Amino acid sequence: MVPDGVEGDGSGSGPYGDRVRLANLDGRATIITGAGMIDVERGSKGRFGPDLTSAYERWAELSSTQWDIGTAQPLPDPLPADRLGPPSPHPRQVFAIGLNYRDHVEETGSQLPPEPAVFTKFQSSLAGPFAAVTLPSDNVDWEVELVVVIGRGGRGISEEDAWAVVAGLTVGQDLSERVVQRAAGTHFSLGKSFPGFAPTGPWLVTADELDDPDDLRLTCSVDGEVRQDGRTSGMVFGVRELIAKLSAVVTLWPGDIIFTGTPAGVGMGRKPPLFLAPGQVLESTIEGIGTIRNQLV
Amino acid sequence: MVPDGVEGDGSGSGPYGDRVRLANLDGRATIITGAGMIDVERGSKGRFGPDLTSAYERWAELSSTQWDIGTAQPLPDPLPADRLGPPSPHPRQVFAIGLNYRDHVEETGSQLPPEPAVFTKFQSSLAGPFAAVTLPSDNVDWEVELVVVIGRGGRGISEEDAWAVVAGLTVGQDLSERVVQRAAGTHFSLGKSFPGFAPTGPWLVTADELDDPDDLRLTCSVDGEVRQDGRTSGMVFGVRELIAKLSAVVTLWPGDIIFTGTPAGVGMGRKPPLFLAPGQVLESTIEGIGTIRNQLV
Repeated sequence: MVPDGVEGDGSGSGPYGDRVRLANLDGRATIITGAGMIDVERGSKGRFGPDLTSAYERWAELSSTQWDIGTAQPLPDPLPADRLGPPSPHPRQVFAIGLNYRDHVEETGSQLPPEPAVFTKFQSSLAGPFAAVTLPSDNVDWEVELVVVIGRGGRGISEEDAWAVVAGLTVGQDLSERVVQRAAGTHFSLGKSFPGFAPTGPWLVTADELDDPDDLRLTCSVDGEVRQDGRTSGMVFGVRELIAKLSAVVTLWPGDIIFTGTPAGVGMGRKPPLFLAPGQVLESTIEGIGTIRNQLV
Repeated sequence: MVPDGVEGDGSGSGPYGDRVRLANLDGRATIITGAGMIDVERGSKGRFGPDLTSAYERWAELSSTQWDIGTAQPLPDPLPADRLGPPSPHPRQVFAIGLNYRDHVEETGSQLPPEPAVFTKFQSSLAGPFAAVTLPSDNVDWEVELVVVIGRGGRGISEEDAWAVVAGLTVGQDLSERVVQRAAGTHFSLGKSFPGFAPTGPWLVTADELDDPDDLRLTCSVDGEVRQDGRTSGMVFGVRELIAKLSAVVTLWPGDIIFTGTPAGVGMGRKPPLFLAPGQVLESTIEGIGTIRNQLV
């Protein structure tokens, strides 16, 4: 996804650096680069639709399009947070992987899973990257996660082909109400699906924009205090393996998302446990992608 | 949902009895009664859209509509199976409840769950009521289930109001690959989501058409031999409780479906275990609703 004139032009002096991203701006698919932003529908003269869902449906075509950077609009600095929505706002399938970092498995006192522990975050929990999140209790924990957005998708995808079916990567929080989560035995889905418990964003970055998409630093802080600091190379099952293992069973569809698990440092791993409180600000960052920020209320 | 002239007219002599159902016929919302069938879009002169999803979006209005039975078309007998699709073909959320019948909890050697064990069947597993199902292995088990389709939906719904947010009920199979299911620890979702593992149908029956929607006989047979024979009154958490407990966390949306769990008699509960084989026919029936039939290949 390289617009003419952006690659290597040193536009990193702009407020957003020189990476190329796909954002959900006012519900419209919008390419954001250091040189400005291009509305996908208008910039393609109607060849692509306005929304993100249709962007993933035609990902191969969209991601190989050469955009005319001359049509880019200036970027507001900062981008108004309330105009950014989830990079994939209507995934038909949301996969989430439990216990997928060795250090996190250890802090929870669990066993390394022999196969990915797959659950879902129900769609009504999805939120934008800067959404305020209402805490339903005093038992809500943070979990920064790398989130994969599917482009081409398919079934029976090999590890070798896995990155080719991915549209890109974004930052997510897998917020978790630990009492509800545990009350359902080991079934995670419900306790992780309160409204706002799945913020993602701030935009999609394609894997080719990252030096090594299999080894990204991810951190999470509460009111500026670092709580998690890991690397995606610490996953038990990496992105390639997850796509191979999921697609051995289900068909992956364009726009589907995968929450790939969280590294050590969650609140329930502490003695005594520490959870989120109203008034705090939760920041989640992945190297080369960006930061999402959620005010807790 | 009572068309003029159908209620109490003794049309039970027709091939489908005198109950009123909503079917997905050729992808179109179609009312089926003993007196004939009415295409929802055409029968409403375009007031409602043609598809099932839009029917649930406007369920209150649609279900209180008085239909002109004079416009009904004759019913083919039998209805061609390949024209019937799932009553809710594109649910945004699919809830499934594990271990929700006391006798099934017992046969699996599990503990009664203190709260519903909520997982999902991923959307790509959905299939029509008479779909052929390809067995991915020799470890696929049957589970007949009552499936709830949400109409109005909402959040924070009380048990008292629960039936009012339901569009109706249908028959489902929660087919389960036991090796994949167990390999993921106790995370059920993946092993229950191979293509075709969630057939539902043959149509939707509204709760008011049933004598007691909380106590329905449900059975399942393989090549005519009965494998499960239970009653929905044997649920640990009944439909009302499930809706209250789910909606205490998530927002239920129109068209969402809930697989409510299976009674005793599954193959893994036998000694030795017994699973499905290619060539067999799986029939699942719920009293007052109907039968779905799946050829295994």
